[in-house]
Amino acid sequence: MASRFDTITFLSDYGSGDEFVGVVRSVIRSIAPHAAVIDLTHEIPPYDVLAGSLTLGRAAQYLCPGVVLAVVDPGVGTERRGVAIEVGGGQSYLVGPDNGLLASAVAMSGGATAAVALTNRAYQLPAPGPTFAGRDVFAPAAAHLCNGVPLAELGTPIDLDSLLPGLMPLPQERTDDGSLMGQVIWVDRFGNCQLNVDPDEVDHLGLLVQLRWGDDVRTAQRSVTYQGIAPGQIGLVVDSYGMLSVCMGKRSAADELKMPVGTEVALVSPGADGPPAAGSTPVTLTPRSTP
Amino acid sequence: MASRFDTITFLSDYGSGDEFVGVVRSVIRSIAPHAAVIDLTHEIPPYDVLAGSLTLGRAAQYLCPGVVLAVVDPGVGTERRGVAIEVGGGQSYLVGPDNGLLASAVAMSGGATAAVALTNRAYQLPAPGPTFAGRDVFAPAAAHLCNGVPLAELGTPIDLDSLLPGLMPLPQERTDDGSLMGQVIWVDRFGNCQLNVDPDEVDHLGLLVQLRWGDDVRTAQRSVTYQGIAPGQIGLVVDSYGMLSVCMGKRSAADELKMPVGTEVALVSPGADGPPAAGSTPVTLTPRSTP
Amino acid sequence: MASRFDTITFLSDYGSGDEFVGVVRSVIRSIAPHAAVIDLTHEIPPYDVLAGSLTLGRAAQYLCPGVVLAVVDPGVGTERRGVAIEVGGGQSYLVGPDNGLLASAVAMSGGATAAVALTNRAYQLPAPGPTFAGRDVFAPAAAHLCNGVPLAELGTPIDLDSLLPGLMPLPQERTDDGSLMGQVIWVDRFGNCQLNVDPDEVDHLGLLVQLRWGDDVRTAQRSVTYQGIAPGQIGLVVDSYGMLSVCMGKRSAADELKMPVGTEVALVSPGADGPPAAGSTPVTLTPRSTP
Repeated sequence: MASRFDTITFLSDYGSGDEFVGVVRSVIRSIAPHAAVIDLTHEIPPYDVLAGSLTLGRAAQYLCPGVVLAVVDPGVGTERRGVAIEVGGGQSYLVGPDNGLLASAVAMSGGATAAVALTNRAYQLPAPGPTFAGRDVFAPAAAHLCNGVPLAELGTPIDLDSLLPGLMPLPQERTDDGSLMGQVIWVDRFGNCQLNVDPDEVDHLGLLVQLRWGDDVRTAQRSVTYQGIAPGQIGLVVDSYGMLSVCMGKRSAADELKMPVGTEVALVSPGADGPPAAGSTPVTLTPRSTP
Repeated sequence: MASRFDTITFLSDYGSGDEFVGVVRSVIRSIAPHAAVIDLTHEIPPYDVLAGSLTLGRAAQYLCPGVVLAVVDPGVGTERRGVAIEVGGGQSYLVGPDNGLLASAVAMSGGATAAVALTNRAYQLPAPGPTFAGRDVFAPAAAHLCNGVPLAELGTPIDLDSLLPGLMPLPQERTDDGSLMGQVIWVDRFGNCQLNVDPDEVDHLGLLVQLRWGDDVRTAQRSVTYQGIAPGQIGLVVDSYGMLSVCMGKRSAADELKMPVGTEVALVSPGADGPPAAGSTPVTLTPRSTP
Repeated sequence: MASRFDTITFLSDYGSGDEFVGVVRSVIRSIAPHAAVIDLTHEIPPYDVLAGSLTLGRAAQYLCPGVVLAVVDPGVGTERRGVAIEVGGGQSYLVGPDNGLLASAVAMSGGATAAVALTNRAYQLPAPGPTFAGRDVFAPAAAHLCNGVPLAELGTPIDLDSLLPGLMPLPQERTDDGSLMGQVIWVDRFGNCQLNVDPDEVDHLGLLVQLRWGDDVRTAQRSVTYQGIAPGQIGLVVDSYGMLSVCMGKRSAADELKMPVGTEVALVSPGADGPPAAGSTPVTLTPRSTP
């Protein structure tokens, strides 16, 4: 049996404090010693399937062909299925729980072309209990796929329509006055707040955009770079994934603006509530002082 | 000299914030470029030899044959010995300080069959001081073993009986009324509290078990899965290493129950203090409300 | 084109919570699948170019020949240049922003022998914006160098004298009374405070050295090992890089002494302020009690 893939991309909520990631890597190396494992991240917040799914979706277009192993699995050991999904007619495989975690990456990779429930215990490790499926079920499946084991060997075929869809955040709505409702779907290490908003959707608002969230109202300025944002000002930057992001230069927008994941943000023309801003009227930025 | 091993499993208390782990990996790659390094974890609390030893012991049965490199070394530079230990007549080697850190993994791997003190400076890096033995002594030893350097080359043979034993937590005691004293020996990322208790030892208590620790008394229910624990309830789950673990579904039992590593927990029949609970008497769960 | 290097050493301020590091590794593997990536650390504080530069400088002498990829890049997307620097006439390359980050590693590696600005878009990824140069510019450059692409292919040659120098902390000054002014330039995981002081410079002060910082005055004792420091005492240890370090055995000197990075510390003869300490006069240690 010829080896088929030599890269496994691995994401989980296992953290780095325990031996979970290392044990999974050992299991993979025992079965498929030729396979390199790339850790995407293991710091997905515990049980946060949506965060894991969004992370996989962002990364998908940059991943090497091969096997994606993803484990954020609050229902481990219950009737939720473990699955292996083929995409692109066999160009890549995704392995993990069928709880929506894999959905965005599957979609970004062109959609599923086949899938099985991981029911064949011959390709699993014996275990004292059902609580560490990453080690006992998913890692062996990923490694065996790298070795060229056919998908159908790993379990029973399942209807592609039965795969659980992702829990994507609501798309933004465009209201009568041209404003948009967005949502913070990711805060990165630098405190930049990615919105589920395509930059094209706010181009009609111009270079200045009013942001409204909770009880706060602030004006932000479109900027191409983080450094282009003046100190104390708020920038709207097209981030590295092409989405609109609320930023504050070298400071954390999420912390300073109290804008965690899930915050709903309205993007409005700055003159929307007062007299309409004429195109040529200079607009004075009056950012709130930050503590 | 033929290369002998191609996997080094690496555990330490070095953390990820400094360059320590990367420098050790560079040293290994300079000496044994064919060897893959699997990081087990580097987040062992600083100087916590017992936590490192327990982590190695849990992982041991899943590790690839090869060399284990483990460094939690509060006595670095003192008279404590650096050692390389052969297990299984040469199936694997363990390298690190002789302070009990390696003991549980050695035991889990079938016991030591030979050992040397790492005294041969020809297989070490020159160094400005004795404070980074991981880089200067242990990593080179692990790499040279991968290259096929015989154990006896690395230093002077030592009596296996002189190796420092592990500081294992006291085994549980069974008292006259059938109750057990356990101890929390590991809190994982999810807040599950592993006890040094074999599940078989509490089977006679039935599906409901009273837990007593500090001034607290709560009733826990045996559960096969984390998800099987009702919200607010306490579960006793056989964890992925076959030990009994105190869990609270998607919440951290360690945080909610104030049950850190080292907490002593009595496991008692729920009727032990009142009238004896008849087998068929329904028991009402009265969990304390959590803040 | 023959592959030229098979090791990339990677440092950044990307952290481990997002997918940044994994995506960069995927990009490298897509271009240069034979190259191993060694993570030096990704926990450089966000935007802290000096901390990144010092970390690279410390590690430089231990790194495998190959390519160093370093990204701490507050000015990403602005007119700051991305560069690839050849050292040792082609023995190694360093890739990253031209903001001083690479300077200490270049110096430790024998100095630059050639450099280019990374202007050739044929060796870059297309991107929606200029905010993730690590993925789109630097990682491809590092990978192509591993594949044997000549430096001159990656962009336009630049004058070596135009490379931004590092922002090294001021060297210590020696005053008339033989005392030295040092500065804490690194606090490691264990709380040891590395000073920018060569141990030889304080040998004339003897085994006891008075430390003065902020409003505090304490006496420290030279010690070869961490364990040689008595509980509650302060030690001055020659650390694993040959620099003088303020230590407190198993406790964090940085926390207990409130001595973060940047703290200026005077190293003085213990008798400097009172009657001169005769060589044979016993000196009583009177450490301040710690809370």
